[in-house]
Amino acid sequence: MGKGAKQPSGPEPDRGSLVTPSAEFPPLDPEERTALGRIGERWRVPRRPDELPVDPALGRNRPGPAPSRFGRLTPIDMFTVEEPGELCATGPAHEPGSRTGRALTRLRRTLFGPPLSSSAVIYERMRKLVALPILSSDLLSSVAYGPEAMLAVLVLAGTSALGLSLPLAAVLVVLMVAVGVSYRQTIPAYPHGAGSYIVARDNLGTTAGLAAAAGLMLDYVLTVSVSIAAGVSAITSALPRLAPATVLLGVLVIAVLLAGNLRGVRTAGNIFVLPTYAFVAAVLALLLVGYARAAGRGFAPVPPPAVPATEGLGLLLVLRAFSSGAVSMTGIEAVSNAIPAFRPTEWRNARTTLGWMVGMLVLLFAGLIVLIHLNGLVPRADQTILSQLGRVTFPTGPWYAVLQATTALILLLAANTAFNDFPRLLFFMARNGHAPRRFLHLGDRLSFNNGLVALALAAALIFVAFGGHTQSLIPLYAVGVFLAFTLSQAGMVVHWRRHRDRGWRRRLAINAVGATLSGLVLVIAAVGKFAEGAWVVVIAVPLLVLLANRIHHHYATLHHALALHPPPTPGPASGGAPPAPGGSAEGEELPQEVRHLVVVPVARLNRASLRALAYAASLGQPTLAVHIAPEDAEADRFREQWQAWGDHLRLETIVSPYRAVIGPLAHYLEALHTTRPELTLTVIVPEVVLRRRWHRLLHSRAEHRLRGALRALPGVVVTSVPVHLAE
Amino acid sequence: MGKGAKQPSGPEPDRGSLVTPSAEFPPLDPEERTALGRIGERWRVPRRPDELPVDPALGRNRPGPAPSRFGRLTPIDMFTVEEPGELCATGPAHEPGSRTGRALTRLRRTLFGPPLSSSAVIYERMRKLVALPILSSDLLSSVAYGPEAMLAVLVLAGTSALGLSLPLAAVLVVLMVAVGVSYRQTIPAYPHGAGSYIVARDNLGTTAGLAAAAGLMLDYVLTVSVSIAAGVSAITSALPRLAPATVLLGVLVIAVLLAGNLRGVRTAGNIFVLPTYAFVAAVLALLLVGYARAAGRGFAPVPPPAVPATEGLGLLLVLRAFSSGAVSMTGIEAVSNAIPAFRPTEWRNARTTLGWMVGMLVLLFAGLIVLIHLNGLVPRADQTILSQLGRVTFPTGPWYAVLQATTALILLLAANTAFNDFPRLLFFMARNGHAPRRFLHLGDRLSFNNGLVALALAAALIFVAFGGHTQSLIPLYAVGVFLAFTLSQAGMVVHWRRHRDRGWRRRLAINAVGATLSGLVLVIAAVGKFAEGAWVVVIAVPLLVLLANRIHHHYATLHHALALHPPPTPGPASGGAPPAPGGSAEGEELPQEVRHLVVVPVARLNRASLRALAYAASLGQPTLAVHIAPEDAEADRFREQWQAWGDHLRLETIVSPYRAVIGPLAHYLEALHTTRPELTLTVIVPEVVLRRRWHRLLHSRAEHRLRGALRALPGVVVTSVPVHLAE
Repeated sequence: MGKGAKQPSGPEPDRGSLVTPSAEFPPLDPEERTALGRIGERWRVPRRPDELPVDPALGRNRPGPAPSRFGRLTPIDMFTVEEPGELCATGPAHEPGSRTGRALTRLRRTLFGPPLSSSAVIYERMRKLVALPILSSDLLSSVAYGPEAMLAVLVLAGTSALGLSLPLAAVLVVLMVAVGVSYRQTIPAYPHGAGSYIVARDNLGTTAGLAAAAGLMLDYVLTVSVSIAAGVSAITSALPRLAPATVLLGVLVIAVLLAGNLRGVRTAGNIFVLPTYAFVAAVLALLLVGYARAAGRGFAPVPPPAVPATEGLGLLLVLRAFSSGAVSMTGIEAVSNAIPAFRPTEWRNARTTLGWMVGMLVLLFAGLIVLIHLNGLVPRADQTILSQLGRVTFPTGPWYAVLQATTALILLLAANTAFNDFPRLLFFMARNGHAPRRFLHLGDRLSFNNGLVALALAAALIFVAFGGHTQSLIPLYAVGVFLAFTLSQAGMVVHWRRHRDRGWRRRLAINAVGATLSGLVLVIAAVGKFAEGAWVVVIAVPLLVLLANRIHHHYATLHHALALHPPPTPGPASGGAPPAPGGSAEGEELPQEVRHLVVVPVARLNRASLRALAYAASLGQPTLAVHIAPEDAEADRFREQWQAWGDHLRLETIVSPYRAVIGPLAHYLEALHTTRPELTLTVIVPEVVLRRRWHRLLHSRAEHRLRGALRALPGVVVTSVPVHLAE
Repeated sequence: MGKGAKQPSGPEPDRGSLVTPSAEFPPLDPEERTALGRIGERWRVPRRPDELPVDPALGRNRPGPAPSRFGRLTPIDMFTVEEPGELCATGPAHEPGSRTGRALTRLRRTLFGPPLSSSAVIYERMRKLVALPILSSDLLSSVAYGPEAMLAVLVLAGTSALGLSLPLAAVLVVLMVAVGVSYRQTIPAYPHGAGSYIVARDNLGTTAGLAAAAGLMLDYVLTVSVSIAAGVSAITSALPRLAPATVLLGVLVIAVLLAGNLRGVRTAGNIFVLPTYAFVAAVLALLLVGYARAAGRGFAPVPPPAVPATEGLGLLLVLRAFSSGAVSMTGIEAVSNAIPAFRPTEWRNARTTLGWMVGMLVLLFAGLIVLIHLNGLVPRADQTILSQLGRVTFPTGPWYAVLQATTALILLLAANTAFNDFPRLLFFMARNGHAPRRFLHLGDRLSFNNGLVALALAAALIFVAFGGHTQSLIPLYAVGVFLAFTLSQAGMVVHWRRHRDRGWRRRLAINAVGATLSGLVLVIAAVGKFAEGAWVVVIAVPLLVLLANRIHHHYATLHHALALHPPPTPGPASGGAPPAPGGSAEGEELPQEVRHLVVVPVARLNRASLRALAYAASLGQPTLAVHIAPEDAEADRFREQWQAWGDHLRLETIVSPYRAVIGPLAHYLEALHTTRPELTLTVIVPEVVLRRRWHRLLHSRAEHRLRGALRALPGVVVTSVPVHLAE
């Protein structure tokens, strides 16, 4: 492929489509950087930081004896020195401090393995022979139900209509090859991840990208619940005693898949390599033996049993049969999303893998359709077509059982593809601000824990809600997939028109064919199956797009509000500079302009409140103590105690004749703020830390409610001074 | 009565049994006061508080133009000046700041009336003619089911056994008078509240007091659900169409009672005066007409219909009948709990009211028993005895309907007595640390909102759980009541032995008789009805006592931990004094000994973090910024930005190779603390205040989780610097 295709490209410079642990910490814009320097020029810090009373490197950069160790690692030992001013946290520093927290961490380590360092991200890559089974289980498992879905529609028009399966299969093979070639072209053009979301967004705009993403998200969730339902029902039809436990079994399988994926990509791959290959081998053996038998009788088709027609053989029926057969293609997009998970050169390995996958799909799909035709098989309610074919081909021996077992297994594992792609899609959406930012976070096994858990929860919810009978959803999810296919390939058409690399006309034509064919299937599936449930997808996609846009709006507003702007007037930065425009304490960004008033609410004089008062006084800022009294007599009594203490700080008592505390205090602080808006009010609240949860019921937790009431006030800083109880 | 009896008395000096709004703010012990002064002597405050940058009295003590008003009251206008150093919060200062909060407040005002000032507490007292119906509805309503409960047991031994009702009634009248006289003696001895809890605790010890309290608490909850169930079933038997709504009706009645009581005592009284008097009048009319008719036939008893015996007439049966009849006495303790709600002189008015109540009870109870006997009535399943008597006495006219309606009404209102007593009991328990302290709080209508809501919830729960069919619980609650009676009167026996006022021997004898009789009833009720459900009470009382003791233990531990102790060495209080024993920052209580290190965690440089840094720097204390980076490259990038800003503060970057943020940061602070335990670490966290709840889902709320992780660390103070978004 062309040279230019190896570079990431698109209308706006992408921040790279790589999955990096630093995605949570995007760098500053150039304008913000400039503003940062301008703000910094005006800063005046009263005291230089070199006078720190403690070594921030924890004394670990000094030569000499290492800090002593008692039993458990001391907190100091949890850090190593990297270079001056930089420490590195070791594994134990990630463990929570509480006993139950540590026990939970140990359990997690046992289940999911030890944490993986950020620097290990490069090693978690897949060889092609590993990637193939991981990424293709979804695609290849589709042949277990795709041909049958098509024949089940055709047979509605009677036995004679079954003959149409061969030309329809030929068209589907053309579609598979067209879509496959389209995606092969996409991969080198987007070597860091050629998911439909990215391709559509780059070339067709945000809304198209989000629509593709919404389609794919629905597809992934449905893939998990549908594949697992099909797999579990394959198990329960073999072992009917397990049938009552269908829901439990399915949820268990989802949990196992989740756990496997939380362990990380490579381990997950190792688990899932064998069954996919076993399924492919079983179907290939079926085809070999089947065609050998057919050759034995001169490839003469067995006439199918007569089935009465219930519908006329119209165009709509043929189109419905076609779109049903097209579900065999779900999962073809898995590779292009997962390019960064390949070993270098990633795009080349991914493209090769995609080629193998499509070839395998065409071989299995076409081989099965023709063999079914040769054997004159008709869809039956009590047995799948694949099972019928197995019985005909392997009348004796364990081969039929092996075929059924591997079919069940690959259906269960098809769900795993979604576990690879869903979190990655959310990562890309989150990086553009279209999904919650927590999906950017790489867990301690370098997997997207939040995305994995979200997918498992959604799929389990659907599975449980449908009681494990989600097979009726199979035709549905073609709509989401073909929406993504169409948008992705339409995007590539725009891409080639814009970039005009060598051979762009040919590439454009290929993608245009792919887009047109996919679009046709999309329309056919959405219209033909609207009443059967496609309306859910037709409603859900715009809703998801809307939600993503609302999320983006929030993040954009937040970013705008928090962005750094250069100070309006670079004038003399003397201590007595006028307050920033707006006159509010929150306008301040320079330390020399912050004017303090420390306020300490005191309910009673005890060790906790005296500690808060001492802390407040030690800050050396103007300090005011406030006492809220329910009646005059109590106020007098408190003032008298205050005198006995020595009247070290100014006290204001507020009588609250209606006995509320939080409201009057909050309004008093608001009144102080109104009087002098440029003041920063620091409210210092003593907080008794209770060790047991039920003890919280015994306290009004006024400091908690106070914090809630003060959050809304501008220019009010809240400081919690904790007092820990020995018991 | 004797002079000494007017003084509150007991083994320990009681803080007064008055309900005061200041109960939430108990005064300091004398030792704590001394310690306070000693601590104060050693305080050195760097700056005098007179230099405050704002007038804490909000400029309202200066003559001149008042602050301007725009539309809504400004926060400054919400406060008035009482005296120098004291403000008074007006009503609006109690309203929450948020719009929804204000709307809720307005709704509450509409339902429950405007707030009442603490100084109004004296006016919310009851005249005797108002107190009588409020406090006696529970007691007097008991005659609606007490006689019947007794006869229903007797009739098990056949018609002939019914003759025993007269002697049993005579014994019960003796019991009523004995208990009544006992309580009359208790009231002047405990003029500020003679509840069984206080009397038993003062004289028999804490456990006895808590046992009495537990018995009463169960009694109050059961009174509410049982009375309302009986009242509702009276309504639904008159109007059978309402029967399906039994549960809804009952919950509604509980809600109305709750609302009435939340409005405050006097208003509640006004609502409930009429029905009680109407019931008494109706029963008196019934007795008058009934005896007139009986006189017409020469007081010759009508022979009762023959009822076959199902049990032998043994001693146990008689005792069970006796204890069943004793439920007529439930509610007699209401007055002694409510003494402070009377007008002065409280104890005298309360005693008079009690006398009237007991007299009325004896009159109604004895009159009904004898009249039932004269008319030869027998308990029937389809009609209450009172209803039968009404039909016999008023064969025509609306009088029978009036009797039934007032009976239903007073049963509903009997529940109201519990709403008076339950919160008051919890107040006294909370003041001794045996119940959660929130029960000390007087709501803005001077009612104990928390106690009222707790009672309503518990009663509604039982009512709903039993589907409104709680009549089977009626015999149960005699156990709790007679436990309280017995302990209270046994306590009075001890009281007289200790105090030996004039006539103490006679008083002791009276209370001893009362205690013995009550104790007998208690044993009979607990044993005779153990299998019928009394076992619940037998289990619940010790559990409640245990819980109360656990609560007390917690408060005592807390009080001990927070109590002020004089400083160990009064030595020279120079600035360089050695840290307090323990070497921990939390040992400090003197401002000049607090050593600061300010730590600012910075994730990225934006307006929020720069504001936190400026705030930190402006405090003029040694300051350290900390950045947690997921990998080396990001750490370098951040340091480079820090240089571009001007490197105003010392920065330490910590690489967290496993990408966690909270854990390493918490452990780093712990390590700093370990290095220099005497430092107070102030962690300054920028906090973006989100306006909409759903936006919180879009943020990891790291500052929230950080606060949680830091709470457990000693010597770490957390400061939230909020940034408010315009949108």
